Amino acid sequence: MSERNEHSKGGVYSVKGKEFNRDSRYIETRIVAEPREGTDDYPVEPHRYRLVAAYACPWANRAIIVRDLLGLDQVISMGNPGPTHDEDSWTFDLDPGGVDPVLGIAKLKEAYERRFPGYDRGITVPAIVDETTGEVVTNNFPQITEDFYVEWKQFHKADAPNLWPDELRDEMDDVMQRIYTEVNNGVYRCGFAGSQEAYDAAYDRLWTAMDWLEERLAERRYLMGEQITEADVRLFTTLVRFDPVYHGHFKCNRNKLTEMPNLWGYARDLFQTPGFGDNVDFEQIKAHYYVVHTDLNPLSIVPKGPDLANWRSEHGRG
Amino acid sequence: MSERNEHSKGGVYSVKGKEFNRDSRYIETRIVAEPREGTDDYPVEPHRYRLVAAYACPWANRAIIVRDLLGLDQVISMGNPGPTHDEDSWTFDLDPGGVDPVLGIAKLKEAYERRFPGYDRGITVPAIVDETTGEVVTNNFPQITEDFYVEWKQFHKADAPNLWPDELRDEMDDVMQRIYTEVNNGVYRCGFAGSQEAYDAAYDRLWTAMDWLEERLAERRYLMGEQITEADVRLFTTLVRFDPVYHGHFKCNRNKLTEMPNLWGYARDLFQTPGFGDNVDFEQIKAHYYVVHTDLNPLSIVPKGPDLANWRSEHGRG
Repeated sequence: MSERNEHSKGGVYSVKGKEFNRDSRYIETRIVAEPREGTDDYPVEPHRYRLVAAYACPWANRAIIVRDLLGLDQVISMGNPGPTHDEDSWTFDLDPGGVDPVLGIAKLKEAYERRFPGYDRGITVPAIVDETTGEVVTNNFPQITEDFYVEWKQFHKADAPNLWPDELRDEMDDVMQRIYTEVNNGVYRCGFAGSQEAYDAAYDRLWTAMDWLEERLAERRYLMGEQITEADVRLFTTLVRFDPVYHGHFKCNRNKLTEMPNLWGYARDLFQTPGFGDNVDFEQIKAHYYVVHTDLNPLSIVPKGPDLANWRSEHGRG
Repeated sequence: MSERNEHSKGGVYSVKGKEFNRDSRYIETRIVAEPREGTDDYPVEPHRYRLVAAYACPWANRAIIVRDLLGLDQVISMGNPGPTHDEDSWTFDLDPGGVDPVLGIAKLKEAYERRFPGYDRGITVPAIVDETTGEVVTNNFPQITEDFYVEWKQFHKADAPNLWPDELRDEMDDVMQRIYTEVNNGVYRCGFAGSQEAYDAAYDRLWTAMDWLEERLAERRYLMGEQITEADVRLFTTLVRFDPVYHGHFKCNRNKLTEMPNLWGYARDLFQTPGFGDNVDFEQIKAHYYVVHTDLNPLSIVPKGPDLANWRSEHGRG
């Protein structure tokens, strides 16, 4: 997601004396196989929608990965804003002329405004835009990946993984909830803490969860067992950012990921799986956090480290 | 040293667009066994001088360590300013009533002013103060430790190490010079870089030197061979701050010290030697950098990590 009010270039993310609270109000419109009466559902339809997702953003990175794992890259196009958005919006500054070649817009905000004039919440990624109208459909990131699996099934590739196994669903929901609050959002709670007390509490929560995961992955190749599920995608996008960004920039520095043997092996196992590592852009990731959060890093200098070549090393899992 | 103009609480250390240049003008008065005619030399004399040194500061930490290694703690007293000085001066905020019990002053600046009214350079530690007058004698940190060895020899304890072996002196000077410019000061050059270009260049210089040291220590227990010298003291005070501070705060993050096998074993070997680790205060070290450099860390939040218990682990050297 990476909201305007949290992730603006030169903006304020931490508020002195306060703990960090994420604004989690999104556009809850869905794209479904069978639109329901009396709702604003959009229909599943190939070649109609565009996923707008910055490689820098962990929430957008989930959608990029799931789209590829399921083969939906054949029916849903993708636009990629650059890593360092301005205060107003994510922008298509990496595209020729700074304009998305399909949507014809320079700022993602234009798609939000087209559907909701005067839209005053975060201009976030991932967002799905209707190419026929140029209007944003949804930015509700957890629903986007779930609907990619459930609603777009007829367009999955033949060997698409089962990311949401029915028999694991209850346990998965619990695991994903804990990962969301304690890890995905937990690192932000450390980084954007506005007081020592808020930071200390956030750090303890994060590492309690990291220790739980380290232990869980001692007995399982993936979070839910022997197969990759949505839960793995959701954890992966935080883990891959851990040493390059969260360890230093967000002060999540009890250990590097490389010092957690099971998590490190697991993260590399996923990284080396098609759809994961090939959708990770470390340069964009580092540029995003270190340049955009000027209240944490006033000079916007991007560290050269760490050495990341080891992501392709033997993981010893499975 | 940690100068007023570089290390002031809430001050500016990095200057946008500039590389970092240390102000290295100090009070060059010496304390010597035989004062020279026509100089401002002070005479060596037991129970006359007070070493003022903050445990937080790497330059002061050298003097604390050397004083103990040589047994000069029996003849030179010590005062310890707290880790988070204000814009004006290091302060004795850890002492009862915030006043040094021997000098009777709250701010180290008072001892500088007493000798040089209107003193306008950095109020730095380490400093040596003449207890009989309350005047600062010197803050010239590399000379202070050398004179502790050469000039105070008659007061060394019986088993004091030879920190300046004559036969190694030429090579030691070269090694110490490179360590000073590339490592001791090199980490500051990374942290206080005012532009991406200055930072990138500083990072490359630092890691070139770290790789040189890693290789050098593959064949030698200590920097100069089988015995501890002044060169080891000078490198140690930077290494012990590496993972808690320089890795994250100064963006020296290619590797943690713990990822450099020879340097890490060497640093622990020294840490576990009397006079070294017992003079390291990690809490004060972290508080100093993260609280004082508000231009790098505006909210002054001090990271809880890294886990430092491993400094007492088996080092496998020697």
